[in-house]
Amino acid sequence: MKFCSNCGTLVELRVPEGDTLPRHVCAACGVIHYQNPKIVVGCIPEWKDQILLCRRAIEPRQGLWTLPAGFMENAETLAQGAARETLEEANARVHMGDLYAIYNLPQINQVHVFFRAQLLNLDFGPGIESLDVRLFTEMEIPWETLAFRVIREPLKRYFDERRQGQLGFHIGTIEMGKT
Amino acid sequence: MKFCSNCGTLVELRVPEGDTLPRHVCAACGVIHYQNPKIVVGCIPEWKDQILLCRRAIEPRQGLWTLPAGFMENAETLAQGAARETLEEANARVHMGDLYAIYNLPQINQVHVFFRAQLLNLDFGPGIESLDVRLFTEMEIPWETLAFRVIREPLKRYFDERRQGQLGFHIGTIEMGKT
Repeated sequence: MKFCSNCGTLVELRVPEGDTLPRHVCAACGVIHYQNPKIVVGCIPEWKDQILLCRRAIEPRQGLWTLPAGFMENAETLAQGAARETLEEANARVHMGDLYAIYNLPQINQVHVFFRAQLLNLDFGPGIESLDVRLFTEMEIPWETLAFRVIREPLKRYFDERRQGQLGFHIGTIEMGKT
Repeated sequence: MKFCSNCGTLVELRVPEGDTLPRHVCAACGVIHYQNPKIVVGCIPEWKDQILLCRRAIEPRQGLWTLPAGFMENAETLAQGAARETLEEANARVHMGDLYAIYNLPQINQVHVFFRAQLLNLDFGPGIESLDVRLFTEMEIPWETLAFRVIREPLKRYFDERRQGQLGFHIGTIEMGKT
């Protein structure tokens, strides 16, 4: 951030009175421009013993496999956002289930939120951000070509827990800058 | 948002190519300025059968009681943010426990995340944003002077569940614009 989005003046980086962190502050109009973490919402779409993955058509990690997920939008709930992303990326309609995992990614200022979800039917296919959309059994998961650690970790946990017959909510933190 | 924070030019509101929602777009430098929900993190600090509340020294709802909570900052985890807010608002140190509740507030583009937490000692007191900090038993909770519905709802649930001997995680949505 270089310019004030309210009045167009150059901003300065300083600790406002009563605050503890440096913020972008406009000396002209006084607006303080806070920057906060963003939420990524997605789901694990289930169909019997299979789950749905999308092959990314866009950078980063173009060509690699991922769960349907993306930035939460204003005016929606977490579950609505996860359903919207699933529709956009996989043209898939789901019943959104329980919250399954939350991952902090403090190095890139994101919080990723995953639900379990049940596919309503097999009428799906790649949206504009996907090259391919497919169902995978555990044995078929392309572990070596998953796009992000924040996808690999909950999926590994999901199949481990499923084998043990008990799926439970989990909060994790991915400490690397790279996802 | 009126001006591009990257180059200072007036932004226009339009749907970028390949997108579905109107965004603030800079015609001069091309940057798309996305706006996304913010996360508020807090906790229910417990001491035996009491919980800690803070009386707000600032607007909105100055003078009313609330749980320690505030906007999550970049570079921290949810639990770190909740602990930081508890220290800032109540000078209280806690052991952060399980996630207790998440509330969507889609009308004001926020997601509120509450943990249970255990006070480490009774060495607490009002921070700069609080007029008073006190421990309350269930009978003493000032239900009529709680600051926000997003505080009242998880607290009501917390005491209901505690009486039944089973505290469980919950996602809710507060549909009003007013909190």
